[in-house]
Amino acid sequence: MNRFLTSISTPTLLLDKQRCLSNIQTMAEKAEASEVIFRPHFKTHQSLQVAQWFREAGTEAITVSSVRMAYYFAHDGWKDITIAFPLNVRELNEINELAGRVSLNILIENRDIIPFMEKAIEHPLGIFLKIDTGAHRTGVPAGEIQTIRNIINRLANNSLFQFRGLLTHAGHTYKTSSVKEILTAYSETLDALIELKMNLSHETEELILSIGDTPSCSLVDQFEGIDEIRPGNFVFYDLMQCHLGSCYPDQVAVMLAAPVVAKHPERNEIVVYGGAIHLSKEYIILPSGIRTYGGIVQFTETGWGGLENNCYVSGLSQEHGIIHADRQMMNRIRIGDLIGIIPVHSCLTANLMKGYLTLDGEEIDHMGRS
Amino acid sequence: MNRFLTSISTPTLLLDKQRCLSNIQTMAEKAEASEVIFRPHFKTHQSLQVAQWFREAGTEAITVSSVRMAYYFAHDGWKDITIAFPLNVRELNEINELAGRVSLNILIENRDIIPFMEKAIEHPLGIFLKIDTGAHRTGVPAGEIQTIRNIINRLANNSLFQFRGLLTHAGHTYKTSSVKEILTAYSETLDALIELKMNLSHETEELILSIGDTPSCSLVDQFEGIDEIRPGNFVFYDLMQCHLGSCYPDQVAVMLAAPVVAKHPERNEIVVYGGAIHLSKEYIILPSGIRTYGGIVQFTETGWGGLENNCYVSGLSQEHGIIHADRQMMNRIRIGDLIGIIPVHSCLTANLMKGYLTLDGEEIDHMGRS
Repeated sequence: MNRFLTSISTPTLLLDKQRCLSNIQTMAEKAEASEVIFRPHFKTHQSLQVAQWFREAGTEAITVSSVRMAYYFAHDGWKDITIAFPLNVRELNEINELAGRVSLNILIENRDIIPFMEKAIEHPLGIFLKIDTGAHRTGVPAGEIQTIRNIINRLANNSLFQFRGLLTHAGHTYKTSSVKEILTAYSETLDALIELKMNLSHETEELILSIGDTPSCSLVDQFEGIDEIRPGNFVFYDLMQCHLGSCYPDQVAVMLAAPVVAKHPERNEIVVYGGAIHLSKEYIILPSGIRTYGGIVQFTETGWGGLENNCYVSGLSQEHGIIHADRQMMNRIRIGDLIGIIPVHSCLTANLMKGYLTLDGEEIDHMGRS
Repeated sequence: MNRFLTSISTPTLLLDKQRCLSNIQTMAEKAEASEVIFRPHFKTHQSLQVAQWFREAGTEAITVSSVRMAYYFAHDGWKDITIAFPLNVRELNEINELAGRVSLNILIENRDIIPFMEKAIEHPLGIFLKIDTGAHRTGVPAGEIQTIRNIINRLANNSLFQFRGLLTHAGHTYKTSSVKEILTAYSETLDALIELKMNLSHETEELILSIGDTPSCSLVDQFEGIDEIRPGNFVFYDLMQCHLGSCYPDQVAVMLAAPVVAKHPERNEIVVYGGAIHLSKEYIILPSGIRTYGGIVQFTETGWGGLENNCYVSGLSQEHGIIHADRQMMNRIRIGDLIGIIPVHSCLTANLMKGYLTLDGEEIDHMGRS
């Protein structure tokens, strides 16, 4: 480990492969135990190599967040893909082309879009209807049964459109402040979906209920009533998930190694090369009221240790990170050392870093570099 | 313009070349009138093509924020480069190599780093001393004359180290709430630097005073007492600069065109394909207390118009942008339209988008895609 670290000269996103494999295995086993389809979201890692680890754990179906990402993984042999983002009519030709090559599912949330689809689509295309169970980002509100029924009936006019089911992202679990609240949000989502499914039993025989957020999928043991889960972030986790209670710090599989360029003991600050263009400006407010852009860990012989108390990333500009350090850290760290930073939001950090280095020094791809 | 817009299918960063050229020309002329060195910061655009527009306006000296960026522009023929980021000792070999090819300046802020430099540097290297005039990010506080003197004297032991002067980034101008406060911060910075220069007249004959922030450089008419300016953001400006009062909305030269994927009239919201991985999560708090991640403009025949009142980006997730729309906008916009978003922080948006499209449909490079 030590020898390998000396080769790092710029901010580098380290990947603990064992933790990542363990996160994949745990979620895959949980899905299997609940007999639900495991369709992990690949927007977090955007990596063919990490995708291969999923494949080795038995994964066949995947979720992506863009048409480009669908192509990226289709090109690597993935044949069952859901683009879990409201259909962008400006990409219908690309979607049609891809639907001719793989089993492709898209997401819609209104009826007006169907005529556009009819003009462009020439291949069988799976369709999920986005349901809003409380996140209020996108989707038809779960209570609007007539609207939902109308969309499903309208889809039935075209034999290429294969209605798959109801999809929701309980994104409001990210706004909770306790595990109990996450479980309550999950339970409300579940109730709404199951009621909807019952009400729609005349329209459709087989209807998949698909849920997606990492907090729920991490904390719920048994996915009763659900047919499919699509968590993404769990592959790496991050400081936000620790903060929410979805994971423990020792499950977080990515860490930014950032070179120290300045020390300011008079204000307990260390300046690192590692800023907004590496970590993203995502932050969380700690229970103490402090705003942080990243947690601090120490390097160990085999990887990194737990989160340091009283040390955190207190500010970011384009390339600079400001670390609030306690006295011990201030004494320990010298200019030229590397500091380990746990990202607040690993999806955004990975998207910016466009690649990973495992603790064995193996380079791992990311779509952003392709 | 209309025909060209139809070809856009995914979030695209549009560049108004005329506004950009005008921003460059205005700042270059202002520098010339004040007889200061114009060393624009290229971290905002990171583009060889935009750099070429600077070259055509007479620019010869540039500022960058990383060693990699220095190489990117050196490779394109730029021969006078300052890396305005505290020296990262882990990149000393790359710095040394580049110093053998171009006139390179680096930035230091403490004495302890000099022995590392002595081991690695074999070519003449220009050195600026970073001075903290109130931003409290990095630098030696302007009042610590003895510390500053010690560093300058220590540098004098090595003939390869060419002390160039004092550099400051009055980043605290970004925390102001009025033009008057920006001008006060500038004036304090100026006073501190000039006093320092006088106090150091025994140590060094020619000493460059270099300042950098876009708010000051945009609002100050005459750079008396200063030798060099290094603004960067002004090349594009953005919503934050409008908010600070550094520019007018019709000077902002970049805009994200984002496809509309959903409408929710019941909550005055429009959902676009365009999220945190396109705009960044930088936000500002408007005077009304509203938090926004971007301003909204309408397309015109030749580009885009002024900021829409009562419409703004109210939230971002990885690929989604949520637009709070007024009733008029809600009626006007249809699914599949493009919405024009003025980024809060154009440097971070450009870094994420990794390229531009001019209003004539010309593709403009960005280092991120190289």
